[in-house]
Amino acid sequence: MNFKLEEAVEVLERTPRTLETWLSGLSEGWLRSNEGEGTWSPVEVVDHLIEGERTNWLPRLAFLLEEGESKPFPPFDRFAHLGRGEQSLTRKLAEFQAARAESLAKLKTLLDPERDLERTGRHPSFGAVKARELLSTWVVHDLTHIAQIVRVMAERYRADVGPWTAFLGILKK
Amino acid sequence: MNFKLEEAVEVLERTPRTLETWLSGLSEGWLRSNEGEGTWSPVEVVDHLIEGERTNWLPRLAFLLEEGESKPFPPFDRFAHLGRGEQSLTRKLAEFQAARAESLAKLKTLLDPERDLERTGRHPSFGAVKARELLSTWVVHDLTHIAQIVRVMAERYRADVGPWTAFLGILKK
Repeated sequence: MNFKLEEAVEVLERTPRTLETWLSGLSEGWLRSNEGEGTWSPVEVVDHLIEGERTNWLPRLAFLLEEGESKPFPPFDRFAHLGRGEQSLTRKLAEFQAARAESLAKLKTLLDPERDLERTGRHPSFGAVKARELLSTWVVHDLTHIAQIVRVMAERYRADVGPWTAFLGILKK
Repeated sequence: MNFKLEEAVEVLERTPRTLETWLSGLSEGWLRSNEGEGTWSPVEVVDHLIEGERTNWLPRLAFLLEEGESKPFPPFDRFAHLGRGEQSLTRKLAEFQAARAESLAKLKTLLDPERDLERTGRHPSFGAVKARELLSTWVVHDLTHIAQIVRVMAERYRADVGPWTAFLGILKK
């Protein structure tokens, strides 16, 4: 196992600023592009990350620490963000930044890493899961969605790169 | 085709700052991790991106505009960066930022997008390639290596996420 709470927090606290540096001011062509019907644009990925702060990560951790395995985590809707309004990306990124900062502040008060990382809750599909597993998943979930944004953006130039497509792993289907 | 020079430049100019926001101050555990023997760590990816500024992208474009298809691009060594010295990551990121800024300044003076995007050079393996294809590939190459860093970091927590591995596309082999 590689998980250390302080290293996990290093990644979690960087994600909003990284997305801001990367996406702020990009043309709509990059921001609204997707990988085809039913797939998300970079802006929709940001919406999804905001929704996760509100309903998924910290709420589930608090539930696990409170209820243990006695009750399964309440379900949440992975597509809830698709109904979100048309704020500007700048507003969305600021909202994500604030929501993440709040989650990490709560994490500090809720969790004692010496005592709580191996405590378990009940996932509605998987059964028993550990606090450590939930926190590791939070980190990898950020990384998954950074990877998704990169992939969506690369896809836009699939035809433009011409013969180089052979050398660009990210364009492999 | 989706390529537009000003949109390509938007991405190219953001990459160094994005990597700085994301990687500066991360623990060595994240920065020196890789995907197994013969694979690169996030720090080695930054070395590779610096090397590309020095020997690949702008130099090849200048060669294409100068020589057309008369001579193939001079070869370059995709592994040259592995010999790079042990500067701090902060130094490396600053070096990448400066080298990229220099490349983009030269690009502006060298290339007339109205006239030059469809001009061709000769790739040692592919034969005729267009300036537009080279520039699109430069963008997608940045994205490929951002994706690589994300993947390397996610890999570190492969065992830690427990049953959630099923939901995390980035951990699929």
